[in-house]
Amino acid sequence: MSNTMKRLAILGSTGSIGQQTLDIVRTFPNKFRVIGLAGGENSGLLAKQVSEFQPQLVYSALKLDLPGKAEFSSMEEIASHPDVDLVVIATTGKTGLTPALAAIRASKKIALANKEILVMAGRIITAEAKQHRAQILPIDSEHSAIWQCLRGEKGEVARLILTASGGPFYRYSPSQLAKVTAEEALQHPTWKMGRKVTIDSATLMNKGLEAIEAHWLFSIPFSKIEIVIHPQSIIHSLVEFMDGSLKAQLSFPDMHLPIQYALSYPRRLPNSELPRLDLVRVKALNFEPVTYHNFPCLRLALEAAKRGGTYPAVLCAADEIATHLFLAGQTSFPGIAEIVAKTIDLHRGIANPTLDEILAADTWGRETAANIATKESLC
Amino acid sequence: MSNTMKRLAILGSTGSIGQQTLDIVRTFPNKFRVIGLAGGENSGLLAKQVSEFQPQLVYSALKLDLPGKAEFSSMEEIASHPDVDLVVIATTGKTGLTPALAAIRASKKIALANKEILVMAGRIITAEAKQHRAQILPIDSEHSAIWQCLRGEKGEVARLILTASGGPFYRYSPSQLAKVTAEEALQHPTWKMGRKVTIDSATLMNKGLEAIEAHWLFSIPFSKIEIVIHPQSIIHSLVEFMDGSLKAQLSFPDMHLPIQYALSYPRRLPNSELPRLDLVRVKALNFEPVTYHNFPCLRLALEAAKRGGTYPAVLCAADEIATHLFLAGQTSFPGIAEIVAKTIDLHRGIANPTLDEILAADTWGRETAANIATKESLC
Repeated sequence: MSNTMKRLAILGSTGSIGQQTLDIVRTFPNKFRVIGLAGGENSGLLAKQVSEFQPQLVYSALKLDLPGKAEFSSMEEIASHPDVDLVVIATTGKTGLTPALAAIRASKKIALANKEILVMAGRIITAEAKQHRAQILPIDSEHSAIWQCLRGEKGEVARLILTASGGPFYRYSPSQLAKVTAEEALQHPTWKMGRKVTIDSATLMNKGLEAIEAHWLFSIPFSKIEIVIHPQSIIHSLVEFMDGSLKAQLSFPDMHLPIQYALSYPRRLPNSELPRLDLVRVKALNFEPVTYHNFPCLRLALEAAKRGGTYPAVLCAADEIATHLFLAGQTSFPGIAEIVAKTIDLHRGIANPTLDEILAADTWGRETAANIATKESLC
Repeated sequence: MSNTMKRLAILGSTGSIGQQTLDIVRTFPNKFRVIGLAGGENSGLLAKQVSEFQPQLVYSALKLDLPGKAEFSSMEEIASHPDVDLVVIATTGKTGLTPALAAIRASKKIALANKEILVMAGRIITAEAKQHRAQILPIDSEHSAIWQCLRGEKGEVARLILTASGGPFYRYSPSQLAKVTAEEALQHPTWKMGRKVTIDSATLMNKGLEAIEAHWLFSIPFSKIEIVIHPQSIIHSLVEFMDGSLKAQLSFPDMHLPIQYALSYPRRLPNSELPRLDLVRVKALNFEPVTYHNFPCLRLALEAAKRGGTYPAVLCAADEIATHLFLAGQTSFPGIAEIVAKTIDLHRGIANPTLDEILAADTWGRETAANIATKESLC
């Protein structure tokens, strides 16, 4: 194994980001080696990944026959194993929270795709990362863009400008939004992503979660984080500096690029498999203001962010339940925001919560959201 | 004087860039102090600048009464004076060449707006700068953009993409171009600049000179420098990295910003007098391919760049004469390119020329271009 080989643990390897991370490993077999894999419900795919990448350590949510020398471990053990340099956290919801903390406490580099971890427990995660000198490298395209724009700068930031495609329904009227089906919501105009984040993109909840993630990743107050609609998803985000100069990061919308950047950082690797951007073919990059009234999830997220404490955890929990119900055809598209709003209304927040209090708020949020949905469907 | 005060010499202080440099000094009286000023034919303005900024050293092309303790010096003396930290070279044409070399040999920082210096003598200037550890900081908005995008990067560059507004005549037909007047050509759609560079922007000669400047400033081969038409002049240029990621620098088009960046680098200073960019108000950023056939000056510049040696110096010299003749109503707009093309055709280039050979080529280019113009007007 060469000195420059990075040894990876990939938590959530069977999801969209996990699979694309393994694409990058396939492209650069001399740069990256997989030490650990953790998969969820798609155990068939996990078994294939294990036999292809031959990790030492495997976590599987479901029963799995392990080939060769691989051993079963917990996600926390994989994330903190001495042979691992960088932990890709591509789990969803709160699943990655305690493994992320384990990796941080073992001073690992973390490539973070699971934004709920920072949304729920940003204060704890960033404080622990500082204490243990664990670097958190963003994978989300917007945060990767900001991170790239901040590279080499002295932090003299005036504003972060998160771009949002607006999702498939940006120009829909309220009556059109009421009729949106799960199938329609899963057709994102510019990005190919997992199901949960695709629905969050359609409600713009995702952009709200990203604002919270940006707040913690870059230590920027919410008053300096703006959102602008940019339908083409070519400019992934911008930073305005104190002198009025802005920097933007651009690419063809493909998650392989920010994943590769987090893996290879501080180097950049030539990858002929990634699509190139041709501005002349793109022709125009457009910008529009965000209209909050049709997308209450975005407003709910920004309000929860400002209230802080356990509110963002409850927001995430309620959104996960509500999105799940929408995908199962058990609530309408506007119903997602209604369930989240009612859950938050019932919550009595705790300021500066401990990890246990955050996890309790998560459980309370899930139960409350589910109860609200059941009552509504009985009415 | 505080330790953080930068002591400036400004060569070409009465020109457009020189005046805007002094605006920045006015805004930050505790950050910058003017040690030397050098002015050309506008001695009235120079006298005012001298009494306002009270420099120790003054160069004037015309007779001038010096107030207070200021002393007359040559531009070379000012540029290399021990009390000077940073030399702003905002002269035009070849005027700044020997002062720039004097500053470099005295290991000064140079903020360079006079692009002809690198076009004519890029190999000598960059070699001397390396030898004497003199930093060359670009002021041109395109090069400032590239420099900002490269900040903190490890030089893993795939392409530089220079943006060009296209100037006032980008959609003109050849018959329309033939009738263009100097007054029309001086109305640039997005930038307020000096007369010579405004005409160079209308012919696109300026973009060719910028490609040569970028080649020398960033050690990038011409094959990796592209030009794209971007009518709004909001994205000032872009860098594509090896991994396919692009970074762009954006701002409202105002030269104060790149000037200030070069003066304050590596810091950025908050300046409420600079206009802020609002992407929502901008609405769209457009891109088009360059059409070379209507803008032969751009093609001539890129050809001269590839031939190298004394050709770029002859290009600059002939362009200066031809532009001057156009401004004086003595040749047509297409006549500029014709005079430059004929001059270059007659030139017998020298590879790896010395400074004297470059200056001789410049003199030859001016005389030849003037002769060609005279003969044409006699025909």
